[in-house]
Amino acid sequence: MFSKETYTGRREALAASLDGGLLVFPGNNESPMNYADNCYDFRQDSTFLYYFGLNQPEVAAVVDVDAGTATIFGDELSIDHIVWMGDLPTVAERAEKVGVSDTRPFGAVADVVAAARAAGRAVHYLPPYRADTTLWLADLLGMAPAEVADGASLDLLRAVVDQRNIKSDEEVAEIDRAVETSVAMHVAAIRMAHPGMNEAEIAAEVARIAKAAGGRTSFPIIATIHGETLHNHAHVNQMSDGDLFLLDTGAETALGYAGDLSSTFPVSERFSERQRTIYELQLASQVASVEALAPGVPFRDVHFTGARVIFDGLKDLGIMKGDTDEALAAGAHAVVFPCGTGHMMGLDVHDMENLGEVWVGYAGEPKSTQFGLKSLRLARPLEPGFVVTVEPGIYFIPQLMDLWRADGTCAEFINFDELDKWRDFGGVRNEEDFLITADGARRLGPHKPQTVEEIEALRG
Amino acid sequence: MFSKETYTGRREALAASLDGGLLVFPGNNESPMNYADNCYDFRQDSTFLYYFGLNQPEVAAVVDVDAGTATIFGDELSIDHIVWMGDLPTVAERAEKVGVSDTRPFGAVADVVAAARAAGRAVHYLPPYRADTTLWLADLLGMAPAEVADGASLDLLRAVVDQRNIKSDEEVAEIDRAVETSVAMHVAAIRMAHPGMNEAEIAAEVARIAKAAGGRTSFPIIATIHGETLHNHAHVNQMSDGDLFLLDTGAETALGYAGDLSSTFPVSERFSERQRTIYELQLASQVASVEALAPGVPFRDVHFTGARVIFDGLKDLGIMKGDTDEALAAGAHAVVFPCGTGHMMGLDVHDMENLGEVWVGYAGEPKSTQFGLKSLRLARPLEPGFVVTVEPGIYFIPQLMDLWRADGTCAEFINFDELDKWRDFGGVRNEEDFLITADGARRLGPHKPQTVEEIEALRG
Repeated sequence: MFSKETYTGRREALAASLDGGLLVFPGNNESPMNYADNCYDFRQDSTFLYYFGLNQPEVAAVVDVDAGTATIFGDELSIDHIVWMGDLPTVAERAEKVGVSDTRPFGAVADVVAAARAAGRAVHYLPPYRADTTLWLADLLGMAPAEVADGASLDLLRAVVDQRNIKSDEEVAEIDRAVETSVAMHVAAIRMAHPGMNEAEIAAEVARIAKAAGGRTSFPIIATIHGETLHNHAHVNQMSDGDLFLLDTGAETALGYAGDLSSTFPVSERFSERQRTIYELQLASQVASVEALAPGVPFRDVHFTGARVIFDGLKDLGIMKGDTDEALAAGAHAVVFPCGTGHMMGLDVHDMENLGEVWVGYAGEPKSTQFGLKSLRLARPLEPGFVVTVEPGIYFIPQLMDLWRADGTCAEFINFDELDKWRDFGGVRNEEDFLITADGARRLGPHKPQTVEEIEALRG
Repeated sequence: MFSKETYTGRREALAASLDGGLLVFPGNNESPMNYADNCYDFRQDSTFLYYFGLNQPEVAAVVDVDAGTATIFGDELSIDHIVWMGDLPTVAERAEKVGVSDTRPFGAVADVVAAARAAGRAVHYLPPYRADTTLWLADLLGMAPAEVADGASLDLLRAVVDQRNIKSDEEVAEIDRAVETSVAMHVAAIRMAHPGMNEAEIAAEVARIAKAAGGRTSFPIIATIHGETLHNHAHVNQMSDGDLFLLDTGAETALGYAGDLSSTFPVSERFSERQRTIYELQLASQVASVEALAPGVPFRDVHFTGARVIFDGLKDLGIMKGDTDEALAAGAHAVVFPCGTGHMMGLDVHDMENLGEVWVGYAGEPKSTQFGLKSLRLARPLEPGFVVTVEPGIYFIPQLMDLWRADGTCAEFINFDELDKWRDFGGVRNEEDFLITADGARRLGPHKPQTVEEIEALRG
């Protein structure tokens, strides 16, 4: 937990950016797996963590902008709870550590909200992403559950996004730690892989490292010989000589901050010539994208910097053809790069995705609807304090290339016969995390081995 | 997945036990962690797995008891899904493997249910344990969310409980596999522990083993030097010489069947004399409880068999006093054994806890409200095919002993001055899993090392 001044300062800055009213922050509850009391590892809501720090279920908080007060609502433990769950600090003791001296029973939040509404005051809340939070807000505000999302406060949402988008030094230090653990996870995986091993063994080991460090993985692990599938969360395949392995995983620290890295490596000790060709092209694209990072540069331009390297490299291989500018504008590269180059990262691995990418990554500008570009999560001009991932990729997706060929999509830029020769190749992605600084960008955490030489040295 | 005949047979047996109507089985959805698309590892609902086997989100199923039909509802993948998630088997292909030839789009379930209701037919469903399922059922049935639980079908619930309580040979074989992995988790933990290590490192390693085997842990890991806290899910302490470590964890197989074991071992290489005294008393209690397992024996009697051993052993130590029968009837043992001796186990580690312990473990008889006994999850006479855990424990809980002393609870049976000398001891539990057979019980999985000699050999 950060100092109480950190949390107090964050709440004061938020309140100062709003015109008035009551801000309601529901904490997350336990999340049932296969029955009510068999739950997944508890994950607090990130916005609640940001302003109130309490990493426990069944609490909520209110900031009264007009009165300048903050209150945490939560029930103290009974003896039955203590027998089962231990003698934990009280809500009041925890609240004190985040600078909140006013604590009340959980049920009292309903009275506070009802009084504000009766007085005609605005009650602001963020759009919920869990059904139990939706039900709770519906009861609290006298709405049908289906109305809750539309009733969320855009003013509050934009104020939170503007504040959380800029990472403080202590947040950056925490993300450095998350990335340090993430690098250890990747190095372990690159070292341990061998033909005959199952994907699940790699996934299990990287999860172990994140957990042993006191946190967890920050998102479902991608550990697959089918790297062409972007969000492949199954780990059911056995690895063979000649396969290319794609690992996309990161650690979350005990405080909730994320790391997010990707590596690609051969299951054999060395890359084949074909693998090396595509691997080095992806790496060149990633390096060029990283070099483009600077304050004021729209991340959309960073995305197209990497896409250009990929398109031109594939043109050299005879897979692509035609004018690069026209091809990029038409989205031809998306047949092998159907996603975006990166995203904001912080307390969420896709930071504040629940608040809407259009606000977090686009500052309210509409997103493109073009295939590929519509999956770019971040496009706005970069600012010092932003933390972003850089992860262009090259993916040979048989279903997608067959569809485009059949439809004639971007046929003037793609040699489908040549492309088809790579249909069993898989996918390549390297990904690192960066802080935008006053004059450029700084790589977060330690160096991740990713040149061909570095990878082969670890594989040998 | 089992054979299609298994699933078809289960559905037919269920339908035959009901008078008619439509049975609605919602599958589970993805469970959001910190935003809608960052989800915990998917866990299908166990009843859905039992009758329909499909281990994927966003499906539902209906059995029409009168027509003798079964239908699975789910949407096929779009190209966007295939790019992100891979080219998975279709819903129709999956349904075929569980003997269901009728598949329809997900939305069509609403029409089927509406038609049944319009015709005045009964629509049966089980009580939901996830808020999103509650919301879905509320929409489907035109109810307020708060009314959904009360509208659940007791007829369906009892039929499902009666069927799932008796494990088939292929289920038992799967549970044997789960316990085999669980034993490996415990042996690894007992071997690796040493002073200076963090609890999180043990928890991480046992989770790794479960995941590497293709499954996961079947419930949140208890790995703690504070074994006196029954459901201690935090792993934040460093281990020291002299500590007693309690591990309660089990594997879940890829098919969803659970194992559940507990071990207790010294962080030093050997038990101290005090530790050995209590450890051997707990083990004697567990062995006596296991010996009491047989068809026709109420599990309540098994519970009291173990409780008697504990009470008498503590009487020998001067901690307890008075007549054992009277003390057990008064619940005096609960000051150190405030929970139950075991529970049903199957597709859920506490099998069907979402359907109500009073049905699963008590056959509809009311549970005791006495402290301690109210936490006994299973009391009914045992039947061949039941799978149960046996896990009596001895826990020195300072808050509980202080409370009873202050209140004078069971003061005629407890020497509080003597009890108080153990307040920093911690807790001890050994737990194994058993199948009730025609003439007794069989230990599931391989032998778990648990004598003092076995534990010290692994620790040396």
